[in-house]
Amino acid sequence: MPNNVLYAQSGGVTAVINASACGVIQTVRRYPETFGRIFAARDGILGVLKEELIDLERESDATIAGLRHTPGGAFGSCRFDLGNPDTHPEQYRRLVEVFRAHDVGYFFYNGGGGSMDTALKVARIADEMDYPIRSIGVPKTIDNDLACTDTSPGFGSAAKFIATVVREASMDVESMASSGTKVFIMEVMGRHAGWLAAAAALAQQAENTPPMLILFAEIPFNQEDFLKRLNTIIKAHGYCVVVASEGLKGPDGKLLTVAQEHEVFAYTQLGGVAPILARMVKEETGHKVHWAVADYIQRAARHIASRLDVEQAYAAGAMAVRFAVEGHTGFMPVIKRLCDEPYLWTVDRVPLEQVADIEQGLPREYITEDGYGISAACRRHLAPLIDGEDYPPYENGLPSYVRIRGELLEKKLPAFESESS
Amino acid sequence: MPNNVLYAQSGGVTAVINASACGVIQTVRRYPETFGRIFAARDGILGVLKEELIDLERESDATIAGLRHTPGGAFGSCRFDLGNPDTHPEQYRRLVEVFRAHDVGYFFYNGGGGSMDTALKVARIADEMDYPIRSIGVPKTIDNDLACTDTSPGFGSAAKFIATVVREASMDVESMASSGTKVFIMEVMGRHAGWLAAAAALAQQAENTPPMLILFAEIPFNQEDFLKRLNTIIKAHGYCVVVASEGLKGPDGKLLTVAQEHEVFAYTQLGGVAPILARMVKEETGHKVHWAVADYIQRAARHIASRLDVEQAYAAGAMAVRFAVEGHTGFMPVIKRLCDEPYLWTVDRVPLEQVADIEQGLPREYITEDGYGISAACRRHLAPLIDGEDYPPYENGLPSYVRIRGELLEKKLPAFESESS
Repeated sequence: MPNNVLYAQSGGVTAVINASACGVIQTVRRYPETFGRIFAARDGILGVLKEELIDLERESDATIAGLRHTPGGAFGSCRFDLGNPDTHPEQYRRLVEVFRAHDVGYFFYNGGGGSMDTALKVARIADEMDYPIRSIGVPKTIDNDLACTDTSPGFGSAAKFIATVVREASMDVESMASSGTKVFIMEVMGRHAGWLAAAAALAQQAENTPPMLILFAEIPFNQEDFLKRLNTIIKAHGYCVVVASEGLKGPDGKLLTVAQEHEVFAYTQLGGVAPILARMVKEETGHKVHWAVADYIQRAARHIASRLDVEQAYAAGAMAVRFAVEGHTGFMPVIKRLCDEPYLWTVDRVPLEQVADIEQGLPREYITEDGYGISAACRRHLAPLIDGEDYPPYENGLPSYVRIRGELLEKKLPAFESESS
Repeated sequence: MPNNVLYAQSGGVTAVINASACGVIQTVRRYPETFGRIFAARDGILGVLKEELIDLERESDATIAGLRHTPGGAFGSCRFDLGNPDTHPEQYRRLVEVFRAHDVGYFFYNGGGGSMDTALKVARIADEMDYPIRSIGVPKTIDNDLACTDTSPGFGSAAKFIATVVREASMDVESMASSGTKVFIMEVMGRHAGWLAAAAALAQQAENTPPMLILFAEIPFNQEDFLKRLNTIIKAHGYCVVVASEGLKGPDGKLLTVAQEHEVFAYTQLGGVAPILARMVKEETGHKVHWAVADYIQRAARHIASRLDVEQAYAAGAMAVRFAVEGHTGFMPVIKRLCDEPYLWTVDRVPLEQVADIEQGLPREYITEDGYGISAACRRHLAPLIDGEDYPPYENGLPSYVRIRGELLEKKLPAFESESS
C-alpha cells in the first residue's frame, strides 16, 4: 500500500500560500499509485510534533479548489524551527513516531528559508534514523529573499498590492498638495530585504510620476540627505511619496525603530518606521504629512493577487509533488526565468542545502546610485512579476474565501511533552 | 449664447470623486442648448479666486470617460473655505469678476459638508450681488457624514476596501496565532464619525468569524473594559482583530492621540491610534501584536471600488447638472433608499442649507449595546453599499488611470492678492 502524505505551512503566510497547498493536494490526488492518503499538519511542524493532523478526506473538492483563491494559511502556520538532532533528539524521535503511526512517507513543507532548514532536517531523518521519508520544500515568502529562485511565490502579489496602492495614494496626495498634505509616507514589509520597497517604484508611469523616494533596508538612512532631496522634490513637483522598508537602518547599522528606543514606538516587532519618518519630516520641513503602515494588509491582499504569482505558487506545489513521484527527496522547486519580455519561466529544482537559512537581499545594482530608486534592470526584473489579475469570486460585495473544516485525525500516540523545548 | 459651466472639487478626495466629475462633464455636454463651454477650477475654490481654470475642451473624450475609473481629484482639491460675505467681501467681488470674465453661469462644487457651505455662499451671490449664477453641490465624502442622504459617494468604496482587507488580514492573523501574532489592529479614517469603522464588521462571515472589536469615534474608549474583552476573545478564539477609528476618544472626550500628547506621536493630524493601542495591548497583555494604518490607501482604493458607489457618484454628478437644466440653484443631489433588499435607490435633492457644515455621525442604535460592534440594522444598511465590483482597466499589471493635460485658460484679470486672507 502506498505511503501517506503530510503537508504543512510555516512562517509568515502570504496571499498565495494556499494556492501552493492546492497544487500539492490536487497533484497528490492524481497519483493514487504513488500516494496513499493526504493529511495537513495544523500550524506547521508544531502540528506534527503534537500529532494534530487534519484529515483532508473530510474537505470537499470545492474547498480544496477554493484554496487557490484564498489568502492566509488555511491549515495554520508557526514560528518554530526544529532544533539540531544532537541537541534535540527527542524532537526527531517524535517526528518518526508520528510519521510511523500515520504511515507518512512524504513530507511537503511550505515556507521560506527558515522552513527549508526544517524540511532539510526532516529529509535527513531517512538516512540518520533509518525511517523512509521523502521531504520536499515548497517555496513562499513575500520578502522575495529566497535564494536560487527568480522569485518567491507570495512576493508578486504583495508587490502588486504595494505598487497599486502607492499609485492610488500618490494621486490622492497630488490632489491635496496645493493647500494640504505634501508628503505621503508608506511603510512596507522587509526586515532585511528591500524587494517590496523596490516594487513601489512600479507605481511610476514615468520618471517622477509620481515623484518618489524609496528608503531601502539595504541603504543606510542619512537624514540630512533625505530631507534635502525631499525638499528639492517638493519644490519641483509640489509633493513627494516616500516608501520605507520596515527594516530601515541608520548609518550605524541599527534599525531606525531600535535606534530611537527611548521613544514610544521602539518595538521592532511593532513596526513604526513610517511614524518616525513622519515626525521627522513634519518637524524639520513643516510640510503636512500623512503616513500609512500596510503590515498584514499587503501580504494578505488576495483581492489584487498577481495572476503570475498565483500560477507560480500553484506550480511550485504541483512540481514538489512531481519531484517526489520521480523519487527525489531534499529538494525545493525554484522558478527559472527563461526570458524577460515576454516573461517565460519554468520550474527547476535545487537541493535544500542551497536555500536553507539563506536570505538574498536586493542586489546593489538594482538600486540607483543615489540609493533612492530602482535601476532599469530592477524594473525589468520586477515588472512581469506583478502581471495579470486573478480576481477571487465575490459574494455580497466581498471576496468569497474558503474555510476548511479542519477535523483532526484520531490521535494514536500519547501527548508530546517537550514540543516547546 | 448659453453661459459657461465651472466645476471644482474640494476637501479630501475619494476613489470616485472623479466619477462625479465625469457625470457632470458628460451630462453638461448633452445639453448644448443650455450650457456653453465647461471649465474646471484648479484646486477647488482657490482656483476660482486665482483664475486658474482648466480648459476641458483640450481634454480628450477618452480622458473624460477615464475619470470614471480614476481615483484622486483630477483637477486638484483644496482645504479652503470661503469667508463670510461681510468679513471677506473681496472674495465675493473676485468670484463675480472671474465668473463674469469667463461668462460662467453655472457652478458645480463637489465636496462634503464644508464644501456645501461654499456652494451655498456662491448660490447666494445671485441675489446678494445681482450676478446670475446657479450653484449646485455634488456630494462626496468617505466619512459618510453628509446629512439627508442615504450614503455619500466615496464611502461605499472605502468601506469595501476596509471590509475586504480586514477579512484578508484576519485570515492571516488566524494562521499565525498559535505561536505568533494574536492581535491585529487596524486604524481607519473617521475623525468624528465611525461609519468606516462600522464597515469593517462586514468582513465577518458569521458571528466571531473573525472575532472583532470595533472602537468607534462615537463611543468613549474604556481601556480596562477593552482589555478585558480582548483577553476573553483571545481565550475563546485564539486571536482578535481590532478596528479603531482615528477619532477614538477617551472617557474625557479627548482624542486618544491628543490625550497622550506628551508622547511622540501626539500629532492629531499624524494619526496614530493604532500604535498607541498596540503598545497598550502588548504591555498590558503580553500578546504579540501587529498593526496597520490604512490612511490614504483606503480612500484612494479605486482598484476595489464598490460598483454601486461608482454608479451613485456618477449619478450625483449627472443629476446635479439636471437640476441646473431644470432651473434650480442652491441644491445638492442626495441618494434616497427605496428598499433594502434588493437595494433600490433614486436621486432626490435637498436645499444646500440642510447639508452645509452639518456632520452626521453613526446613529447610536447602529452600534451594539456593548459598544464594540454593529447592530443588525446597521449591517442591513451598510451591506448593499459595498456591493458589486467595478474594476479599472489594467496595463502592465497595474490599474491604468488617466491624467488630465490640465492646460489653463488664458487669464483675463490681474492676480488676486488676498486669496489667502
